[in-house]
Amino acid sequence: MILSKVDHTLLKQTAVWEDIRKLCDEAMTYHTASVCIPPCFVRRAKEYVGDRMKICTVIGFPNGYSTTAVKVFETEDALKAGADEIDMVININALKEKRYDLVEEEIRAVKQACKGHILKVIIETCFLTEDEKKRMCRIVTEAGADFIKTSTGFAGGGATFGDVALMAEYVGPDVRIKAAGGISTMADAERFLELGASRLGTSRIVQMVKG
Amino acid sequence: MILSKVDHTLLKQTAVWEDIRKLCDEAMTYHTASVCIPPCFVRRAKEYVGDRMKICTVIGFPNGYSTTAVKVFETEDALKAGADEIDMVININALKEKRYDLVEEEIRAVKQACKGHILKVIIETCFLTEDEKKRMCRIVTEAGADFIKTSTGFAGGGATFGDVALMAEYVGPDVRIKAAGGISTMADAERFLELGASRLGTSRIVQMVKG
Repeated sequence: MILSKVDHTLLKQTAVWEDIRKLCDEAMTYHTASVCIPPCFVRRAKEYVGDRMKICTVIGFPNGYSTTAVKVFETEDALKAGADEIDMVININALKEKRYDLVEEEIRAVKQACKGHILKVIIETCFLTEDEKKRMCRIVTEAGADFIKTSTGFAGGGATFGDVALMAEYVGPDVRIKAAGGISTMADAERFLELGASRLGTSRIVQMVKG
Repeated sequence: MILSKVDHTLLKQTAVWEDIRKLCDEAMTYHTASVCIPPCFVRRAKEYVGDRMKICTVIGFPNGYSTTAVKVFETEDALKAGADEIDMVININALKEKRYDLVEEEIRAVKQACKGHILKVIIETCFLTEDEKKRMCRIVTEAGADFIKTSTGFAGGGATFGDVALMAEYVGPDVRIKAAGGISTMADAERFLELGASRLGTSRIVQMVKG
């Protein structure tokens, strides 16, 4: 079922607890993979859902240019508050400077801080060249992350079929793919899964099933 | 001179060190108040400019929904790397929930972490009602921050004349005003200063003076 692959997502700066609570309720009703919410709501959401739903949150989000030390601290802080899964943004600036070692070391450091929890690595495809996307598939694979993820949803471009197909071709066998940003129809959701995605970041699929 | 009131700003996710170095060079040539750059570039920029230019960086940026613990850590990390001034984003979600004490306590905590360095508090006016803007003027004043700042530049709306006039009316005498986001002409820059701003966040004013 498609809903079991959805990270039911609400990352608006203006969201209030009532919105997050409703998101958690919907996620539990429709058995989504997780709720994906801002760090400041993780503790309350965890207290609310207990073990009935996974909590996913975002790190270095959405611009990716905080330091590695901050991303590691942020990850530890989120796990302590009850997060189950971590979606981090790479340092896009470092990628653009071709400091590939730095980009990889940062992912490794956050993965280590995850202590076995799932780490998804957002590469923000709308800013990258084809070569950079392929290179990030290799780096994410080498760094031992669990997922590569297309987009934050805050940079003007979301998941495309072409990018998910590229990821499916270039990531290693242990790395799964999360398509996120702008997924708005059931047909698109199914197409992303056919192309190789195993998670979808969206709030709209649950709304459609409800509606 | 208007340039001495400018935080010469480059916060793009795709900026590379050459862009930041050029920004620093321009800032030193034109004697701006500071350069405002992503956290990951602070150390290199500080090594480059030494005591010849102030370094300003951004915390909890741009969405504001990281936890207080993370914002405090991020501030300490930035100061250690050589930052002189800190521009933090408030927890907009908490404001929308009317948890005003939490918003104020977070600003106080970051101000304490600043250890006397200038703290500017970004309230992201484009998301706020008139009442929320006035309330934030009081909260920023009570919390002892040095500046109130209109916008991140990442939320779809920047500084407006109306918002700066409102701030000038409602903040206390010890709080200065920084207008940021979308300031693109010299006439607008001058108008913001007349209305009560004493800092401007923009990259375009230096470009105009150069050009």
